[in-house]
Amino acid sequence: MAPIPNARLLFNEIPTNFPEPGKTTVYDTSKTIDVEKEPLNGGILVKTLVLSADPYMRVQMREAHIDGYMPPFIVGQPLYSLGVGKVLRSENEAYKAGDYVYGVLEWALYSIPNTDTGGAFGTRLLKPEPGLPYSVYVGAAGMPGQTAYYGWKEFANAKAGDTVFVSGGAGPVGSLVVQLAKEDGLKVIASAGSEAKVQFCKDVGADVTFNYKTVNTLDVLKKEGPLQLYWDNVAGSTLDAAIENADNHARFIECGAISQYNSKDGVNMKNLDQIYARRLTLYGFLVADLAPKWQDEFYQVIPKKLASGEFKYSEDLTRGLEKGCEALRDVQMGKNTGKSVIIVAEE
Amino acid sequence: MAPIPNARLLFNEIPTNFPEPGKTTVYDTSKTIDVEKEPLNGGILVKTLVLSADPYMRVQMREAHIDGYMPPFIVGQPLYSLGVGKVLRSENEAYKAGDYVYGVLEWALYSIPNTDTGGAFGTRLLKPEPGLPYSVYVGAAGMPGQTAYYGWKEFANAKAGDTVFVSGGAGPVGSLVVQLAKEDGLKVIASAGSEAKVQFCKDVGADVTFNYKTVNTLDVLKKEGPLQLYWDNVAGSTLDAAIENADNHARFIECGAISQYNSKDGVNMKNLDQIYARRLTLYGFLVADLAPKWQDEFYQVIPKKLASGEFKYSEDLTRGLEKGCEALRDVQMGKNTGKSVIIVAEE
Repeated sequence: MAPIPNARLLFNEIPTNFPEPGKTTVYDTSKTIDVEKEPLNGGILVKTLVLSADPYMRVQMREAHIDGYMPPFIVGQPLYSLGVGKVLRSENEAYKAGDYVYGVLEWALYSIPNTDTGGAFGTRLLKPEPGLPYSVYVGAAGMPGQTAYYGWKEFANAKAGDTVFVSGGAGPVGSLVVQLAKEDGLKVIASAGSEAKVQFCKDVGADVTFNYKTVNTLDVLKKEGPLQLYWDNVAGSTLDAAIENADNHARFIECGAISQYNSKDGVNMKNLDQIYARRLTLYGFLVADLAPKWQDEFYQVIPKKLASGEFKYSEDLTRGLEKGCEALRDVQMGKNTGKSVIIVAEE
Repeated sequence: MAPIPNARLLFNEIPTNFPEPGKTTVYDTSKTIDVEKEPLNGGILVKTLVLSADPYMRVQMREAHIDGYMPPFIVGQPLYSLGVGKVLRSENEAYKAGDYVYGVLEWALYSIPNTDTGGAFGTRLLKPEPGLPYSVYVGAAGMPGQTAYYGWKEFANAKAGDTVFVSGGAGPVGSLVVQLAKEDGLKVIASAGSEAKVQFCKDVGADVTFNYKTVNTLDVLKKEGPLQLYWDNVAGSTLDAAIENADNHARFIECGAISQYNSKDGVNMKNLDQIYARRLTLYGFLVADLAPKWQDEFYQVIPKKLASGEFKYSEDLTRGLEKGCEALRDVQMGKNTGKSVIIVAEE
């Protein structure tokens, strides 16, 4: 078989603010691949089916010399993120042609993933639950779902009757946190940035929901608090408002900071003294650290609940790798209405 | 015996910024007391020997309707704080005339303290270590020392070779933290706000010391970090600098926020996203919560080390209750050079 184009999305330039399609990232079809002959060196050749567009990817768009919890993207090289692919050829006995794999894939139609890594970002053989599309395996049944599950199980110390506030409550992490909290008997306050997202917070069972762009967060928390728990996906002034309405000994699960990824301006915090005064504990965590402890349980419990409809999920599908840059930018701007997934190819 | 004047320091007005002697607090000698006949109702009559002037007292100078971890001072009534007194008369069998007591005392020459409370602020019979002045029992051997000891034992999870940064390193809390950290084999960076205080940080064994008013905190931490531990007495921009120089999985012990007590302006924080990215844990705590667990051990260990000179302390003594307001203001401004104690009376 002759070489065919291997479409890719390349990191082109470090953004100063939001990523700009065609400038900070570019779609490229100049490279070709001979699918039958590409050397594997003991690896596997994968055809990409779906790719995840995630908020955290913005922190990889930085100068290479700056440290961070995820490696920087390399200018001129493809972006990469978690995805699901189909194995076309394999020189690794753990995989065979026809298998489906979950793991970090290049934003390319074909790639040879690194199968040596483990944990939440490790490549793993996928045994899809009947009725659950592949796209869900990068969302509620993938890393974002794991983030929610691990963080909740590890830090929430949830008690029925507690009140929890979940910012980013409609996202793939937040919406699963809402459902885990309801399962544990908590009162759940959830915020999101559009009426459609607020509706999804309601749909998954949040007791109090609001659009933080049109309603004052402080007012809602003052009325519905105090909070025994805060799940923080956004940081910034929302974190300050949560501190102001925290109960003594409240637990704060620090999971993300989407309000601060795309700006170097800081945020004015008025309530830092309340961290000690109310004896708050703030737990910062990353999903990968907790994977060894909770991953098996997650895969036993969550995909089934999603397939049966007991737990709900929401997706925002973008069809075609060529539109991936727009999807990624929209995630940074909060324009997606559900877990953002790029459908790269059909099987 | 005829009634004699009972000098008192009264809370007079809520300050908007720093407390102002003669305005927000006033010295009053208009009230008298008959020491032999004052009804005790089962309590004890105490002559005040020393009183503690502490940073946290500023949070009690607030509108009565505002919640807080310490009750608000009442306008027209005396201030109160931890102190040491001598029992003159007693109707409580746990105390007899001639005993020395440690506990919350009114800022008055004579008072009848509430002996029903427990924990770090409870009244307790004092058995002074030979060689240790009473004034130390409101400092390194009192609540501030307990704060350092309890917080360090409970949260530091200290490992020899770790690097800890202690802000407010010359205060009665900070200087004991420095010494506990050195005892555990850590590298200690300590900051303070005057050359004399910086010298005291050195004297108690800190490896790296600096005056945060003349040296950039970020520069020092960048050079001497990363931090596995941060003991925070000040919050504000110092907390932001510590986050910026924290190692992954660093522990932050949130003990105080002196930089923020006297202003309602917030502080610009640039690094809140690093709480999750570096998996930091921030432990807010109050000494009273941990007293049941650590108090006995503290009194067994620390007064002896202070009396023998193994652990050092520093005091800033103000003689005369009439100068108490100035002492309290100076503590808020960081003008004291050692634990601020008001010597109210000789025995």
